[in-house]
Amino acid sequence: MFDTTNDPATNGLTGRTILTGDRPTGQLHLGHLAGTLLARRALQEENRQTILVADLQALTDNAGNPAKVSGNLLEVVLDYLAVGIDPEKTVIARQSRMPELMEMTLLFLNLVTVSRLQRNPTIKTEVEARGFGESIPAGFLCYPVSQAADITAFGADLVPAGDDQAPLIELSNEIAARVNRLAGSEVLRRAELLRSRAPRLPGIDGHGKMSKSACNAILLSDSSDEIRRKVMAMYTDPDHLKVSDPGKVEGNVVFAMLDAFDPDQEEVENLKDRYRAGGLGDMALKRRLEPILQELIAPIRTQRAFLSRDMGEVAAILDRGTERAREDVAPRLAGVRRAFGL
Amino acid sequence: MFDTTNDPATNGLTGRTILTGDRPTGQLHLGHLAGTLLARRALQEENRQTILVADLQALTDNAGNPAKVSGNLLEVVLDYLAVGIDPEKTVIARQSRMPELMEMTLLFLNLVTVSRLQRNPTIKTEVEARGFGESIPAGFLCYPVSQAADITAFGADLVPAGDDQAPLIELSNEIAARVNRLAGSEVLRRAELLRSRAPRLPGIDGHGKMSKSACNAILLSDSSDEIRRKVMAMYTDPDHLKVSDPGKVEGNVVFAMLDAFDPDQEEVENLKDRYRAGGLGDMALKRRLEPILQELIAPIRTQRAFLSRDMGEVAAILDRGTERAREDVAPRLAGVRRAFGL
Repeated sequence: MFDTTNDPATNGLTGRTILTGDRPTGQLHLGHLAGTLLARRALQEENRQTILVADLQALTDNAGNPAKVSGNLLEVVLDYLAVGIDPEKTVIARQSRMPELMEMTLLFLNLVTVSRLQRNPTIKTEVEARGFGESIPAGFLCYPVSQAADITAFGADLVPAGDDQAPLIELSNEIAARVNRLAGSEVLRRAELLRSRAPRLPGIDGHGKMSKSACNAILLSDSSDEIRRKVMAMYTDPDHLKVSDPGKVEGNVVFAMLDAFDPDQEEVENLKDRYRAGGLGDMALKRRLEPILQELIAPIRTQRAFLSRDMGEVAAILDRGTERAREDVAPRLAGVRRAFGL
Repeated sequence: MFDTTNDPATNGLTGRTILTGDRPTGQLHLGHLAGTLLARRALQEENRQTILVADLQALTDNAGNPAKVSGNLLEVVLDYLAVGIDPEKTVIARQSRMPELMEMTLLFLNLVTVSRLQRNPTIKTEVEARGFGESIPAGFLCYPVSQAADITAFGADLVPAGDDQAPLIELSNEIAARVNRLAGSEVLRRAELLRSRAPRLPGIDGHGKMSKSACNAILLSDSSDEIRRKVMAMYTDPDHLKVSDPGKVEGNVVFAMLDAFDPDQEEVENLKDRYRAGGLGDMALKRRLEPILQELIAPIRTQRAFLSRDMGEVAAILDRGTERAREDVAPRLAGVRRAFGL
């Protein structure tokens, strides 16, 4: 199996307390693998890492279709295990089974004004992206406060995420500071954003990032036939009609994939030069890419299929992780309760 | 001890499931006694009644001064017990120790829009009354959703409250309907407002209603000296200078008290006629009122003092009530979880 992380930002980190997570609204795909899963697998060796399966947060914009969340809960856990997240090293916990996080969320809501949330750039962008208009669910407006509860409850000092999440980390730190002021002591820690430098993979159709809902993703569970079909369908350069034509590398999904996963990056640079000059066909590139992706995904798919034969055990892993997580956050909740005189 | 309820709205009610409660931000006083406590004592005989000590809700506008809440938690329970609320008949529960309510609150927040909350007339009025301006704590905006969780979690079909609370009951019923639609079955019941017809007692200074924070209240723990002093200081009619002058009954606090507590209401009507006509002095009225209030409060104060010698037992009563309440709400939470696929 592949054994490098693609994200240089994670190199050499040790002894940190890390919180990451996903909204379980679909199976994980190559974009997650390149963006976070490889980093998490590396980080679990020398850090205290928790992955929160954020099913409550997922409901803040899926309340009309909760089956999308419940149906993907264990699929996501299966994906974690299949890529080598080790539940002995990484705590995998279910958000909706942690009343501690809910209590902290409700208490924190008293420390943040409505207009502060409405002005938050991340929320503004997300509200627009979802087309809520004037009908923003209250739970959605409040989810950054729930996220602040997650981060501070686990005592995380490092939160790997994209740059767009920076205002949410800032909000979390503000809340932590207010709780500490109320308590008169340092009950909660500040967290720092670990800016991912991993490539953000495009979808195979070249339209935006890879996402399951856009149907442009290569899933970690895809069969070899599906992978072949998707590689062959990948968007390249629509003006590159003949092999002899000069081709564009930018926006070319095949090159984005080679950048992310080809172990011989020197050769990838050569291929880019030849492609730009003309004389290198898309098929040749796709034939280079396909076995790389097949080899990358085959062991994950095999492991996933093996583990999926006992979904009871997958559920039990999540339950055990949740129990460990609850023990982990208990002292922080106790501190927050004291701060609020509870 | 007194043994009538002053609220004809509660007469003859049987077999209902009732939720009431208080924000524990101060000791209870005569206003609470006339407004709700007598009714609760009567209702507990033939109905399933829960009193929720809403300490979480109290924090939504007291996060800056949590000691105001924590310091009054057991005082309020003591007041309940002292007036004859029987913990064997009425479940007395602590809101902040019921994670079930928190989970339902967070789930319900996904079913309500921010603008729906901002438009709610009760919230608008309360936001103005508190002078929040643009700085409305998110927790305060969301407290009606938490209240909807309380009402529906207990399966309450009757919520005694003032008319001003009607829009909040309506919101609760809307949320219940949405959950039921999501679940495809009746998981949560509709609740009905039990409009209190009890008199709303004015403060002894005649400015607005009786409230501890306005320092115009006669507390259930007041000594006989304090009661005497407060009766003597009661606002009557500032233009009623000589006994022979005609006096005003409206806005006269002494008459409001006699209306609420004098067992001989026919005589009170006579006194009003004589006062209006002139020839009846304030002192004569106050001398009539004082022993009535002394007799009303003495047994409560005695019982309160007796019970307060073992605050550990008061705390234990609240703990046991909270445990019973948690068992009570569990099946409703399970239904809500199913509705959300959790």
